[in-house]
Amino acid sequence: MVIGFLSDYGLQDEFVGVCHGVIARRCASARVIDITHAIPRHDVRAGALALAAALAFLPRGVALAVVDPGVGGPRRALALATAGSERWLLVGPDNGLLMPAAQRLGGVGEAFDIGDSRERLKDVSRTFHGRDVFAPVAAALADGAELAALGSPVEPHTLTSIELGLARVRDGVLEAHVLRVDSFGNLSLDASASQLAELDDPGVRADGADDADDADGADGADGADDADDADGAVIVRAGGGGAHRARHVRSFGEVQEGELLLYEDSLGTLALAVNRGSAAALLRVREGDELRIERA
Amino acid sequence: MVIGFLSDYGLQDEFVGVCHGVIARRCASARVIDITHAIPRHDVRAGALALAAALAFLPRGVALAVVDPGVGGPRRALALATAGSERWLLVGPDNGLLMPAAQRLGGVGEAFDIGDSRERLKDVSRTFHGRDVFAPVAAALADGAELAALGSPVEPHTLTSIELGLARVRDGVLEAHVLRVDSFGNLSLDASASQLAELDDPGVRADGADDADDADGADGADGADDADDADGAVIVRAGGGGAHRARHVRSFGEVQEGELLLYEDSLGTLALAVNRGSAAALLRVREGDELRIERA
Amino acid sequence: MVIGFLSDYGLQDEFVGVCHGVIARRCASARVIDITHAIPRHDVRAGALALAAALAFLPRGVALAVVDPGVGGPRRALALATAGSERWLLVGPDNGLLMPAAQRLGGVGEAFDIGDSRERLKDVSRTFHGRDVFAPVAAALADGAELAALGSPVEPHTLTSIELGLARVRDGVLEAHVLRVDSFGNLSLDASASQLAELDDPGVRADGADDADDADGADGADGADDADDADGAVIVRAGGGGAHRARHVRSFGEVQEGELLLYEDSLGTLALAVNRGSAAALLRVREGDELRIERA
Repeated sequence: MVIGFLSDYGLQDEFVGVCHGVIARRCASARVIDITHAIPRHDVRAGALALAAALAFLPRGVALAVVDPGVGGPRRALALATAGSERWLLVGPDNGLLMPAAQRLGGVGEAFDIGDSRERLKDVSRTFHGRDVFAPVAAALADGAELAALGSPVEPHTLTSIELGLARVRDGVLEAHVLRVDSFGNLSLDASASQLAELDDPGVRADGADDADDADGADGADGADDADDADGAVIVRAGGGGAHRARHVRSFGEVQEGELLLYEDSLGTLALAVNRGSAAALLRVREGDELRIERA
Repeated sequence: MVIGFLSDYGLQDEFVGVCHGVIARRCASARVIDITHAIPRHDVRAGALALAAALAFLPRGVALAVVDPGVGGPRRALALATAGSERWLLVGPDNGLLMPAAQRLGGVGEAFDIGDSRERLKDVSRTFHGRDVFAPVAAALADGAELAALGSPVEPHTLTSIELGLARVRDGVLEAHVLRVDSFGNLSLDASASQLAELDDPGVRADGADDADDADGADGADGADDADDADGAVIVRAGGGGAHRARHVRSFGEVQEGELLLYEDSLGTLALAVNRGSAAALLRVREGDELRIERA
Repeated sequence: MVIGFLSDYGLQDEFVGVCHGVIARRCASARVIDITHAIPRHDVRAGALALAAALAFLPRGVALAVVDPGVGGPRRALALATAGSERWLLVGPDNGLLMPAAQRLGGVGEAFDIGDSRERLKDVSRTFHGRDVFAPVAAALADGAELAALGSPVEPHTLTSIELGLARVRDGVLEAHVLRVDSFGNLSLDASASQLAELDDPGVRADGADDADDADGADGADGADDADDADGAVIVRAGGGGAHRARHVRSFGEVQEGELLLYEDSLGTLALAVNRGSAAALLRVREGDELRIERA
């Protein structure tokens, strides 16, 4: 069975390799797919989003996720099964990390506190529960162990959840937030294409946007687009960073190099990017920042 | 069957993990070997060189390579089989990325456009064809699917190729180019040991080389080698960086720490390195730069 | 059989992927667990420590370790079997890299020089023995080949060992050294909890420690702890960096954010950390530096 493994351990140390070792000792046939180990340290929200995004593309099985700032403290250690017709098994700390993935996969069916699981390593450290608690339980599940035998039942409604920002349209402006910044500087927003369609009031016009843009001096590609304002152009305003014209297109190939584009990303949500550049750098934003989008 | 996987996705995001997931869903028995995912973004040439260098050491099978600046545009998506006695299957964009590897493995036997392949994921994004097109086709091939059933035939002579620099010897000077810089700062050149042998005219002498070297002040190891000028020493000149003496040796262990050496690298081509240092930093060069090499 | 693989190759180049390929060609059923490839380049001591720490958590089998500054020189290439009741097979250069792991796993039982092994690749480069010598021998061992058939016997007492610092208690001060700095800035020391217990002489008092601390200005959390000096508090002095109060606790959760803590780490040795911070940055130390620890 496949175990999808996500953490904030990085690849500088042997932490990830050691967890692979612990899994292989308990279940030699388990196949581990490393989703990513580059979640920013202790960023539960970023880990939760990456996990939810990735699992839809993995074979149904076990997910092992460790972004765990509360390790060694009172937070519970969890193994849970989803309620959907396709039963997934998710293992990790009770800090919200597993919840968006669980919701996307059908909701939480049953949950167990595995802090004292019989599958734990004999010497449980205070600082490395990925190795000592989560990995062995995930391996036992991959080996076919009964979930209910691995911990104590927990009421699903008591599980810790996390807040994800929610975009809304108000007065002809789509107020969205940066959910994620990938390594290319592309921005995933918490908004959908249908919310963008709500903006389709031709009376809305962002006066002065180009002036602000020019003062900012960051997008030389702007002038080239003046001709097609009527066709899918929007104005994106970041907090302190002025206004930037973007084109709403289906792919990078439809815009010039260096040009800002708004598109539906591979996860089905709105995203901003600069063709062969960084939208994060252009707009000077990071995760959690608000963006205001209007029709140009 | 083994799938060798190379990309410019990096390991910061879950892109690579998601492609592994897509492959595992289509072909549970496929074994993926990550060649590297640290190709500089959009650097098709660097990806092509790394792929060609690596495949010779992998078990014969499938190669999945994605360095794809034209994703979402009109560039074709390809699956091709090599013509050699050992049939390899290569999957990736039609931008030259696959061609040096294909040539090294016997040339292109047959090629297919897989842009509309029946193996694609149901919802094909505009920006992540690694996941939506290339990975599922590679997995189908690893699962034994017929290549011809996965796309439309393409004439091999219409495939996009890429230019790799070619060294030459002129007037007692080997004019070579930096093909690759690895993470240690070692430089792979587009020259062979036989081209170096063409320099063996004892009359050639690079006057003033030491002066330029001293002015540069970058190689304190130089003085120690004056005694063995006659034995394998060369002068290497980079564009703006003065001249540097290097010794032509078989291994790092034959030179002092900090000394520049010229050697035949593990791919069989000439290379420059600094023992426990960086030749790229010493010579101030990067990929594509020209170097002029003479006998000292 | 599992092969645990550790190196200083990094993941920027295709070196690691190529070694995976070589292993898969020789032994298709071998399963490679990447312990880490981020050992600092040529840092044999750091590699040795990481290997010894990790193998205890891997399934018994083969370890392939390559941190090899002497490649191409006269250093021997080794394959050795441990003497313990659980026989491990370790493959790598004879520079001390394998020795701490071997000692931890029962000592060296028998050792062989594999520099001319029949399992080597046909063309052995001078610079990439990981690919050409070590990986194929490790794969052969994973495939069940007899160790004695892969090289020439070597007397175990002739193997190169490495010095690891050793902490000692003198005059009420624990003189310890930084064995490792992980990517979070946590410091593993060469001292044990029992050595810390030797400090339990209530007469020892580090006068002036708080003054030095305040002058340094680096730990605002200090004032909050004045009340519990009697309970597990110690003073840590780094070379040039003043004195810092730390609390001896069992987990990160017991101290404030930004506070320095002394704890027994997941490898069973004393360690220093800053909750959600970097002890290496606070104390301005790196691997090998001495620390002096006293009861507060």
